[in-house]
Amino acid sequence: MTTGRIRITKAMVTPIAFADPPLLTAAGVHEPFALRAIIEVATDAGLTGLGETYADEKHLAALTAAAAAIEGADVYATNEIYRRVLAVAPPATTIASGLAGDSDAVDRVFSPFEVACLDIQGKAAGRPVADLLGGAVRGTVPFSAYLFYKWAAHPGKDPDAWGEAYGFTAIKLKGGVFPPEQEIEAVRALRAAFPDHPLRLDPNAAWAPETAITIARELDGVLEYLEDPTPGIAGMAEVARHASMPLATNMCVVAFSHLDPAIRQNAVQVILSDHHYWGGLRRSALLAGICQAHRIGLSMHSNSHLGISLAAMIHLAAATPNLSYACDTHWPWKTGDVIKGDPFTFAGGAVAVPDGPGLGVELDRDALARLHEQYLSCGLRSRDDTGYMQRFNPSYERVQPRW
Amino acid sequence: MTTGRIRITKAMVTPIAFADPPLLTAAGVHEPFALRAIIEVATDAGLTGLGETYADEKHLAALTAAAAAIEGADVYATNEIYRRVLAVAPPATTIASGLAGDSDAVDRVFSPFEVACLDIQGKAAGRPVADLLGGAVRGTVPFSAYLFYKWAAHPGKDPDAWGEAYGFTAIKLKGGVFPPEQEIEAVRALRAAFPDHPLRLDPNAAWAPETAITIARELDGVLEYLEDPTPGIAGMAEVARHASMPLATNMCVVAFSHLDPAIRQNAVQVILSDHHYWGGLRRSALLAGICQAHRIGLSMHSNSHLGISLAAMIHLAAATPNLSYACDTHWPWKTGDVIKGDPFTFAGGAVAVPDGPGLGVELDRDALARLHEQYLSCGLRSRDDTGYMQRFNPSYERVQPRW
Repeated sequence: MTTGRIRITKAMVTPIAFADPPLLTAAGVHEPFALRAIIEVATDAGLTGLGETYADEKHLAALTAAAAAIEGADVYATNEIYRRVLAVAPPATTIASGLAGDSDAVDRVFSPFEVACLDIQGKAAGRPVADLLGGAVRGTVPFSAYLFYKWAAHPGKDPDAWGEAYGFTAIKLKGGVFPPEQEIEAVRALRAAFPDHPLRLDPNAAWAPETAITIARELDGVLEYLEDPTPGIAGMAEVARHASMPLATNMCVVAFSHLDPAIRQNAVQVILSDHHYWGGLRRSALLAGICQAHRIGLSMHSNSHLGISLAAMIHLAAATPNLSYACDTHWPWKTGDVIKGDPFTFAGGAVAVPDGPGLGVELDRDALARLHEQYLSCGLRSRDDTGYMQRFNPSYERVQPRW
Repeated sequence: MTTGRIRITKAMVTPIAFADPPLLTAAGVHEPFALRAIIEVATDAGLTGLGETYADEKHLAALTAAAAAIEGADVYATNEIYRRVLAVAPPATTIASGLAGDSDAVDRVFSPFEVACLDIQGKAAGRPVADLLGGAVRGTVPFSAYLFYKWAAHPGKDPDAWGEAYGFTAIKLKGGVFPPEQEIEAVRALRAAFPDHPLRLDPNAAWAPETAITIARELDGVLEYLEDPTPGIAGMAEVARHASMPLATNMCVVAFSHLDPAIRQNAVQVILSDHHYWGGLRRSALLAGICQAHRIGLSMHSNSHLGISLAAMIHLAAATPNLSYACDTHWPWKTGDVIKGDPFTFAGGAVAVPDGPGLGVELDRDALARLHEQYLSCGLRSRDDTGYMQRFNPSYERVQPRW
């Protein structure tokens, strides 16, 4: 046990790359490697904490500046750490994070350091991170199956083989790839194959409002929710006035500043939280509370991620009473990890909440070194689904909405 | 230091009474004694925690039921403790808490137990409670001077003598007692006497919307904010459309369910938080975050209270980045306490944040026993400003709005 001040002596940022399958999205196709940054926070108490986040070039630069700025701070002083990150953070719109809209740069840069500080606080108190958020209200956290249209292989490589079973009890189809009629047929085929599974469709804002309204009508009674059918708060509000199912988003409401206009316009009925851009676990708990106050449903968004992120997602989800829907995860699509062992088992589409101190995961330094080498050698420095697609389909253009 | 599970072995509720001066309000006049309940939570780790709340008869019954329900729970499992309180809590509207509207019974009953659990968590970690809320962002917490119209003495008693200086830098006048013209003159006299102090007026919803709009016009440029000029969210929204100064409330928005309608109607520009009815410190931090998301100002409300409540208020206020205004406190009006020593010093209208483990206050069992005896002998069992006023002025009626 550790008492008194616990000061940060060093915060380290290590970019890594892990092989990623050619998953298709409204913006193109996943490149051969997904990039992540691993955060290690060391303290004068000998305790260390972990965080995981995006590794796009501009984000890495911001993380590095923040890592220097927070040295000497106390791990309990997360308000002060937020202030220090704010002082060195870049303007809000300069860091991409996949298909999501412009989230808040400070919240995005602060997030992995906050997670690492809570990891350390948990270790100091001998308690899991969920206990720092009010304690787990569920012993296991449910996730949805995350179905992607994909190429059989990255061009020039052997076909890959995915098929492992995780027992998921809800199914999400990543759409926005093919014309809407084709994706409606896919949803109907899923409904026929899985008559009792809640189904979600996420075209990542590929449809104009009128298109989205038509499709919502066609899928009446079929979907648990329709995710980001169209771009922007005003467009979503227009679709919401006509859609029978809840509309969900991780694109038009991705920062605290988006909440007020979205709520006033009744634009969304479900928000997919994501601690990576909502400012860490405590600020994601705040988002959950805001959703509850406004009777907005809550689910959880995912990008390609590894075990440190999964641990943080599970502790947060476990301690969130009003988590209305099974969370998203790209977990089945990952090809490696930086944590030791295999602490997370999916059973019935859910994962048990770790009950050890902190996040409950340990860094595998050999794996970290290996994936960092892969980062250095792979040549990718920022995610670019569109550019990669254009290499093989030069006429491809990023259009939003496309239909 | 304490690690592992910390289970509640016993939660005790002790009602107390302390002498209260005859302060005038829109509902009548303060009775000779103010009632409070002191909560003590004991654990199997030997650590104990403190809470303080209302002691109206129905609230006491609810506290006693909750105290029994939470035994065996872990002090970190505040989500679970909330669930247990919910299971035994009375319907929302049955517990009065002064002039405030109907706050949420569960939040009100849960609050002192949550504070006690955070007190214990802080002691276990060797850290002040503010550190469990993200850490203090200010070393001292500013309070406003809280001016009341008052009788010189309770009927039949010798005149009392208040006059101690606390160096307050903001001034709030409790109005709704005399006709509006007279209170406007009082505010103007305060402005003349204190040209640089921010001034607030709180008539506790004693005015009809038209009256409030007229008064707001007359006090244009004079008030920092106008608190609860008129009853209800719709009335406040009407006044807000015409008032130049922000409207504040601790009457029409006193529960999470009130936020959505108030925000949609732009009814209030400042919310006075109060952990006693907003569900403890973490849920008050949630309220603060909601205010920030909707660009609503934040201040803090007070009822007559003692040192355990002040400690909780200070830790919360210290760790709330967006506390926009100096807090209210009845502290200068209190006549006794249940905590040891005198840990809080007002200097320049502010109090330093305790930096010891937990809340930083210790129970004085002799004082507790004395004030409990006073509770038993004083005969009061629920706050009744109106009934007490009517004993001396039989024609007095509780009318809202009065003007």
